Amino acid sequence: MNTSATLDKPVKTAKGKPAAKGPAAPRRAAKASTRTVSPALLDATRRPRIAIEQVTPSVAPQAGRTFCAKRVVGERVEVEADLVCDGHDTLAACVAWRRAVDADWQTVPMRLLGNDRWQAHFEADQVGLVEFTVEAWVDEWASHAAGLRKKYAAGMDVTLEIEEGRLHLAGTDGLDSEVSRQLTGIAQRLAEGSADDRAARVDLLLAPSTQALVQQVGRRPHLSRLAPSLFIDVERKAAAFASWYELFPRSQTDDATRHGRFDDVIQRLPDIAAMGFDVLYFPPIHPIGRLNRKGRNNSLRAQPGDPGSPYAIGSAEGGHEAIHPELGSVEDFERLRAAAAEQGLELALDFAVQCAPDHPWLKEHPEWFAWRPDGSMKYAENPPKKYEDIVNVDFYAEGAVPALWLALRDIVLLWAERGVKMFRVDNPHTKPLPFWEWLIADVRAKHPDAMFLAEAFTRPKMMYRLAKIGFSQSYTYFTWRNHKAEITDYLTELSTTEAREVYRPHFFVNTPDINPYFLQTSGRPGFLIRAALATMLSGLWGMVAGYELCEAEPVPGKEEFLDSEKYEIKPRDWARPNNIKAEITRLNRIRRENPALQTHTGVRFYNAWNDKILYFGKATPDRSNFILVAVNLDPHQAQEAHFEVPLWEFGLADHATIECEDLMRPSRFTWQGKVQHLRLDPLDLPFVVWRLVPPAAPSPLGAEV
Amino acid sequence: MNTSATLDKPVKTAKGKPAAKGPAAPRRAAKASTRTVSPALLDATRRPRIAIEQVTPSVAPQAGRTFCAKRVVGERVEVEADLVCDGHDTLAACVAWRRAVDADWQTVPMRLLGNDRWQAHFEADQVGLVEFTVEAWVDEWASHAAGLRKKYAAGMDVTLEIEEGRLHLAGTDGLDSEVSRQLTGIAQRLAEGSADDRAARVDLLLAPSTQALVQQVGRRPHLSRLAPSLFIDVERKAAAFASWYELFPRSQTDDATRHGRFDDVIQRLPDIAAMGFDVLYFPPIHPIGRLNRKGRNNSLRAQPGDPGSPYAIGSAEGGHEAIHPELGSVEDFERLRAAAAEQGLELALDFAVQCAPDHPWLKEHPEWFAWRPDGSMKYAENPPKKYEDIVNVDFYAEGAVPALWLALRDIVLLWAERGVKMFRVDNPHTKPLPFWEWLIADVRAKHPDAMFLAEAFTRPKMMYRLAKIGFSQSYTYFTWRNHKAEITDYLTELSTTEAREVYRPHFFVNTPDINPYFLQTSGRPGFLIRAALATMLSGLWGMVAGYELCEAEPVPGKEEFLDSEKYEIKPRDWARPNNIKAEITRLNRIRRENPALQTHTGVRFYNAWNDKILYFGKATPDRSNFILVAVNLDPHQAQEAHFEVPLWEFGLADHATIECEDLMRPSRFTWQGKVQHLRLDPLDLPFVVWRLVPPAAPSPLGAEV
Repeated sequence: MNTSATLDKPVKTAKGKPAAKGPAAPRRAAKASTRTVSPALLDATRRPRIAIEQVTPSVAPQAGRTFCAKRVVGERVEVEADLVCDGHDTLAACVAWRRAVDADWQTVPMRLLGNDRWQAHFEADQVGLVEFTVEAWVDEWASHAAGLRKKYAAGMDVTLEIEEGRLHLAGTDGLDSEVSRQLTGIAQRLAEGSADDRAARVDLLLAPSTQALVQQVGRRPHLSRLAPSLFIDVERKAAAFASWYELFPRSQTDDATRHGRFDDVIQRLPDIAAMGFDVLYFPPIHPIGRLNRKGRNNSLRAQPGDPGSPYAIGSAEGGHEAIHPELGSVEDFERLRAAAAEQGLELALDFAVQCAPDHPWLKEHPEWFAWRPDGSMKYAENPPKKYEDIVNVDFYAEGAVPALWLALRDIVLLWAERGVKMFRVDNPHTKPLPFWEWLIADVRAKHPDAMFLAEAFTRPKMMYRLAKIGFSQSYTYFTWRNHKAEITDYLTELSTTEAREVYRPHFFVNTPDINPYFLQTSGRPGFLIRAALATMLSGLWGMVAGYELCEAEPVPGKEEFLDSEKYEIKPRDWARPNNIKAEITRLNRIRRENPALQTHTGVRFYNAWNDKILYFGKATPDRSNFILVAVNLDPHQAQEAHFEVPLWEFGLADHATIECEDLMRPSRFTWQGKVQHLRLDPLDLPFVVWRLVPPAAPSPLGAEV
Repeated sequence: MNTSATLDKPVKTAKGKPAAKGPAAPRRAAKASTRTVSPALLDATRRPRIAIEQVTPSVAPQAGRTFCAKRVVGERVEVEADLVCDGHDTLAACVAWRRAVDADWQTVPMRLLGNDRWQAHFEADQVGLVEFTVEAWVDEWASHAAGLRKKYAAGMDVTLEIEEGRLHLAGTDGLDSEVSRQLTGIAQRLAEGSADDRAARVDLLLAPSTQALVQQVGRRPHLSRLAPSLFIDVERKAAAFASWYELFPRSQTDDATRHGRFDDVIQRLPDIAAMGFDVLYFPPIHPIGRLNRKGRNNSLRAQPGDPGSPYAIGSAEGGHEAIHPELGSVEDFERLRAAAAEQGLELALDFAVQCAPDHPWLKEHPEWFAWRPDGSMKYAENPPKKYEDIVNVDFYAEGAVPALWLALRDIVLLWAERGVKMFRVDNPHTKPLPFWEWLIADVRAKHPDAMFLAEAFTRPKMMYRLAKIGFSQSYTYFTWRNHKAEITDYLTELSTTEAREVYRPHFFVNTPDINPYFLQTSGRPGFLIRAALATMLSGLWGMVAGYELCEAEPVPGKEEFLDSEKYEIKPRDWARPNNIKAEITRLNRIRRENPALQTHTGVRFYNAWNDKILYFGKATPDRSNFILVAVNLDPHQAQEAHFEVPLWEFGLADHATIECEDLMRPSRFTWQGKVQHLRLDPLDLPFVVWRLVPPAAPSPLGAEV
């Protein structure tokens, strides 16, 4: 069979003579010109015979743009593809991948899962773009061997099949390698044998050693190669697994009239680290505008002494590059960063692209802003509301392109040089998508470990698009998903649709802006419920200081905090009774010890026959770590339910036994049978976390979660 | 706002001076070189601000290949797209489309459906490729007007907003058109009015006439255009809606020893047309090989007088271009074609790329075939089975590329010139995909109304791929889907996944090769059940002559016909008692009269509380035609069920009334209330077909099916 059936240029067919007989002959002769080889025919004869489809991981291109799927270091990359080929030949395929465009290609053989779907996997082992492709070809030797095996077993005459096999082996002659010498040796033995030792000759042809030698020759007829290749954006582990603690540095004080400083934050570090957090995140730490400063509870005019909102960035003391003098100096900040690192806490900063009216840029770069016809400032607004303490830059103003874009990029670079690699971006969806795409790529080219969290509380398609263009993580709708069906649907969307390849959901139980209605009336049990949901469902979770104290006093009727820290300094007694620090500590520890909980993927919702009880499993792909969680979503009443222990995930029968550990209140026991019962009392502990101890024998379903 | 914010070449930023103050200043000065405008930044500033995503109809590209969605003439093309843009500006969008690359572009405004999804539609009105794209831009006037309206309603001072509006209108000056003269006129009136007639000025600014004039100016700031554009392959109506009748011309005789001729088929045409069929399809009509000819019931050796299988193509009398002499001449064939056309029947022929061992090509073009080492023919095989009456060509043999490809294409062209435009392709999945893609495109370039039906009984991904590369229709798994869940799942897949854009399912109730197990034991009721399912579920259905007589005698234990027509001449009494011709006639008539039944899309499965009763609705997109069908899937027993009349589809309450017609046994009645009851007796009629008479008032959900 010819493996390179191509032509170099359009030609008349050599065999264009009219057929000898039949009514068509005169017509065909008259139409000889239609037999010119067109470019389309040339193209068709060169086109890959094997179609490669539905390759994953990948993200569907949109309007000609392509995007990367995301993984983190240490994660297994499972590549799958549909291979579609005419006829009944045996196919072979591999995944070829490399860590960088100048690195060596590595190959992993693919195996057929069934229904034309093939799979292989490799491990993402360093930060950066990994390139991969799929190669598929016809395995002529395997095809021939399969036919020979069947015919021989059926007692048919296989003389010609043996001869065809011999010719195949002899055809490797001239490759001038040890392998080809061995193969031509086998071909000689086949030729020399008498017709009587047919069995011996069939055995020789079908021997695994012969097969292995043929494979080493590496002929790949009808090779198809996925082109263009695909890329995976590999980030560090913290892009997918981290526990964030947010605080206002100025509130780290025991006296509301004394502005907390970075040094005060240093004092707080051991407490935060002890709870098991690994990221410490601050709202903006820059000088706060004085012009139109907001007062307490978002009042229009500040009173003397009111500190203002840290989101009104910039004053005579500096802009985004500067530190609010009352917090400390750059040196103080760097000391804090080092102290946090010692406690295992990485700092995350807010990047809010907006200015107080007295931000230096207003005077230095008036061309970066929109102005009214009377020369006045155009304040941020959402008609009829106005935000007079904030002015937005205009990314497409004539003088702003590209100077403003560069200035903003430089601010991020400056903080990256000061050791900050995590940026929580405020309202990215109100700034141009191409700007973010460029900025993130540019910053990551210099700081590959930089990460950006999108605070995009907006419509879902914008949230996913921000993820596609480079944001490592995103805020979510989790804060407003309280019911069993809501949570199930949302997690199913996040973990099974294309979103799973790009969008890493960060589950914040609250934010300085969002005091969820649920928590306003739930009391302490509600805080435990939401903490359990966030920590167990997502690899990324976060809370604002005060959550551990069950703070939820609202502005009446609104989803906002009364006396919000956004507008005032707020000292706290961190040892206040009825706090939930012990439970949070335990949950964070369980997360660290169980890889299944370090991602939102791998979740499955199981049956618990009570709409108030959410019950789900989280498992690693190999099922070596298998966690079950049940949460009573009702903070007011005890709920109970029968539920199903997913014995089938381990290939066990419905009456089988399985060992289990309770991770919140350590104990170990055995379940017998699929249907069990539980009761969750919010006044005690409204949730339970179990680890299943997989049976000793590996499950035949091992790789399917 | 600048609408063309681009730069022509990399430049240093004009505003690159160090900031005046702040700790960052020295660093920034030292790092001036990082502020060079990179190609990536240039690219970002030029990149469309509005992302266009998830455009439909479209087919996901695979490995860099793109494919067309399919429609037929007269079908509405509903274009949808997600438009994702930063900020809160009002967007506007249109679909631009044209019938050919040299035709004029036409535009249709898109409307926002919600959740960033936009829609517009146009009608496919001629055969050929339709090109379309989506254009989106920021509607600055609408954004400004919306803000002005809200602020004015809230009693705020809008002096500046009026002035901004005036400046916008005045900015159209110099366009030298009547529109711009009118707009600058409005701007003058706004400038001249006193501050007191603010209301009048706001009214003038917000007037629909002003809005219409601004729209005519046609400014489209931040224009995004979907590129590359997408293509829709528009075929004639019969690609999606047709009823096929298959027969062996040689069996059109009243004597098994007299070979039926084309003239005999002409006698049969009125009977077939009267049943409501519109396509008449023949298995191969070419000379049948004599070498290794198969005998009756697929026996290895034919007896004298056995006619052989028409799929063993070619003999001394000619190959694929020739007609079997016992059927008639080319002239006889053309007379039959004309006679069929007069009865509203179009001919479809079989294209089976395979040769009898005595096909002329074996001698004329030995280089198109694979040969054994001893010089013998390589028969078709599926080890350990051999098919010694058939030899396959080798598409990639050295001498076959491209001569064989051209020869096969020429055969199709020859029959197209003889007036055949429908080709049922035998086993296309065992021939190379690139071959079909080229052949179909090449034939359709000369005969745009040519259509190809893929007889690909194989794995689903190959079936879909064949559809993507150009087959108009395909055989399906329908023949083996008998249970309610199976049928529901299969139709849901065909009508809601990407398959719906490319894969037109042709529901054959049987074929000469497939005598379904279900029909072997079902008796007459089973034939009615399967005919009802095929005709009501799919736009395309087909049957083999004899189905109307409920023929189903099997080779025991096999899904094959005893005394199969493939190997013998089979006369029939077409008026045999207990036939189902009347029911088939009625079903075909119902299909013709109800557009909802002329496609497999637009199907919804509704509740009927009995697993033996399949109950579904078919509706046109505007719901003006709404059909309900209930089928008792059990041919042996009467079944009954409560079922839901889908009143909600018309926005009606659960207790509402709706008028309904019974289309099988014409009558008209009224249902009151959502839950009704039915009973279906297989010995009477195992199915029912109703047409709902939509309420007079148009439904608010009108366009959503």
